Amino acid sequence: MKKLINSPETVVADALAGLAAAHPELAVDTAARVVRRARPGAPGKAALVSGGGSGHEPLHVGFVGPGMLDAACPGEVFTSPVPDQMLAAARAVDTGGGVLFVVKNYTGDVMNFALAAELAAEEDIEVATVLVDDDVAVQDSTFTAGRRGTGATLVVEKAAGALAELGAPLAEVAALGRRVNAASRSYAVALTAATVPAVGRPGFDLPEDEIEAGVGIHGEPGRRREPLRPARELAAEVVDTVLADHGLAPGDEVIALVNGMGATPLLELYVVFGEVAARLADAEVRIARSLVGNYVTSLDMAGFSLTLTRADAELLRLWDAPVATPALTWS
Amino acid sequence: MKKLINSPETVVADALAGLAAAHPELAVDTAARVVRRARPGAPGKAALVSGGGSGHEPLHVGFVGPGMLDAACPGEVFTSPVPDQMLAAARAVDTGGGVLFVVKNYTGDVMNFALAAELAAEEDIEVATVLVDDDVAVQDSTFTAGRRGTGATLVVEKAAGALAELGAPLAEVAALGRRVNAASRSYAVALTAATVPAVGRPGFDLPEDEIEAGVGIHGEPGRRREPLRPARELAAEVVDTVLADHGLAPGDEVIALVNGMGATPLLELYVVFGEVAARLADAEVRIARSLVGNYVTSLDMAGFSLTLTRADAELLRLWDAPVATPALTWS
Repeated sequence: MKKLINSPETVVADALAGLAAAHPELAVDTAARVVRRARPGAPGKAALVSGGGSGHEPLHVGFVGPGMLDAACPGEVFTSPVPDQMLAAARAVDTGGGVLFVVKNYTGDVMNFALAAELAAEEDIEVATVLVDDDVAVQDSTFTAGRRGTGATLVVEKAAGALAELGAPLAEVAALGRRVNAASRSYAVALTAATVPAVGRPGFDLPEDEIEAGVGIHGEPGRRREPLRPARELAAEVVDTVLADHGLAPGDEVIALVNGMGATPLLELYVVFGEVAARLADAEVRIARSLVGNYVTSLDMAGFSLTLTRADAELLRLWDAPVATPALTWS
Repeated sequence: MKKLINSPETVVADALAGLAAAHPELAVDTAARVVRRARPGAPGKAALVSGGGSGHEPLHVGFVGPGMLDAACPGEVFTSPVPDQMLAAARAVDTGGGVLFVVKNYTGDVMNFALAAELAAEEDIEVATVLVDDDVAVQDSTFTAGRRGTGATLVVEKAAGALAELGAPLAEVAALGRRVNAASRSYAVALTAATVPAVGRPGFDLPEDEIEAGVGIHGEPGRRREPLRPARELAAEVVDTVLADHGLAPGDEVIALVNGMGATPLLELYVVFGEVAARLADAEVRIARSLVGNYVTSLDMAGFSLTLTRADAELLRLWDAPVATPALTWS
């Protein structure tokens, strides 16, 4: 295992120390494991809190800032954060407008966020929850009952964050988040497996000429092993898989996210995006907005995921709204 | 070799097609291999053109946009672009204020940009050149007489781009670019080698427990092979190496770039940044601004580089000025 770490035991704490040093606009509580905006939201603003295992950076800590999350709770690598973290985050960011938990659909995350919501309710903090379950690869998986939450998390957090910034009440922000999730589908392929620091070896073995199609962001098994093929063929298969599940019609518009899994160079992601765009053009699905880069990652896994979110005027307005976080910034 | 490409022969063309599809705000001439802003700069603005071999993305194509480059010329992977590309770029972006070539110090790039400058002069396009040579690792190297140009390129392009946007004449923008380069030093370590698509195997072999210290962005040899050690020790060595060459004094301020080489997860880069910040604090060098991410890469190489640029009030103002490119955006 070759990694730029001090030790597997301290990797999350050490990364948070670095995040704090790099981003004075964030308040990083390394003891409570809560990352929040140094400047709280306006009084009464619905606050967004997300979190999950570490190893998916920039998700979620890199999405904290005006126009997106109010706080994030990073767990250990590929391990759910605990309810105390989520409760501490909710307390810290609630300015009277309540708190939206954005939760990726993994059993541990779901359970812990539910418990945190109960604890927050006992303190009279209003909590709503949006569950993200966009991965079409498999119905149930290693850590999940139902579909896994992956790339759509970024789109939900961006859109709901923008609506909250505009002053919409918690219930509306939650409804929008659920609508974005329902409008999103993702699918991923891996060329190599991730190595969890505490494990020290790749999560699975892949021959030099094979990929894992339908892989999850923790290396969960996908649909099948397949031969490695040119990007054009892989992109076509991924687009077709998402479209088959999505029910998009010719003329529909989408937000398209071509996401690297952590160790994929940008040069390759642009090759993939070009092929995705060509295949979507064949299907007469129009890309209204797009994003290309490593955003919802799996440590040092090589590969990519595609997320397509059906777009409409409201969603595009929210997507285009200003955002200022370490990983996503526009004005 | 596991890569998301169609073929080694088409990787640059295919990536440019993807860049064009993802970024309608860029005009991508795939035949001439020139990427420029779709909306030209103001009449009389000094125009910035850079370029170099592909495989270092987002450098340079991802730095094209308001506040940074006017155009970039991508060569084949790890291969200088040709003078015709640079001339076409200069013609396309000159609005009467002349053109600044930002050139990383590699023999091929230097020769080709010099030839392009002569050709442009024959067409009455005023050209100035800034040579970037910030890498302290070695005096001469595989592709270079003198020091190699690496991470400081980003800082030069950001600062000079901001000054040009403010309306400064070409000579001033060039002088500022040279000043930023002179104020910058970089040093890199590699955990793995990059694989050039047309070669099909890693550029060098590294045992599981060794790193290449002082590596170049094309995998050029560094100072020595060293044992892989905890991030704290590697960061300390890298900081000390840069400081020893830089002549920074206690109380000095810097812009600090901790840059991934392409396949390094953000989690690890934040661990490194935390250790870099701690070591700089020991040396009483203050980090005024920072950037953490994969910006000046070497295909799928794992590792990181540190660039320190001595900061002053003018440089910080230019660094903070708005920028809107695919890879760097703030307002």
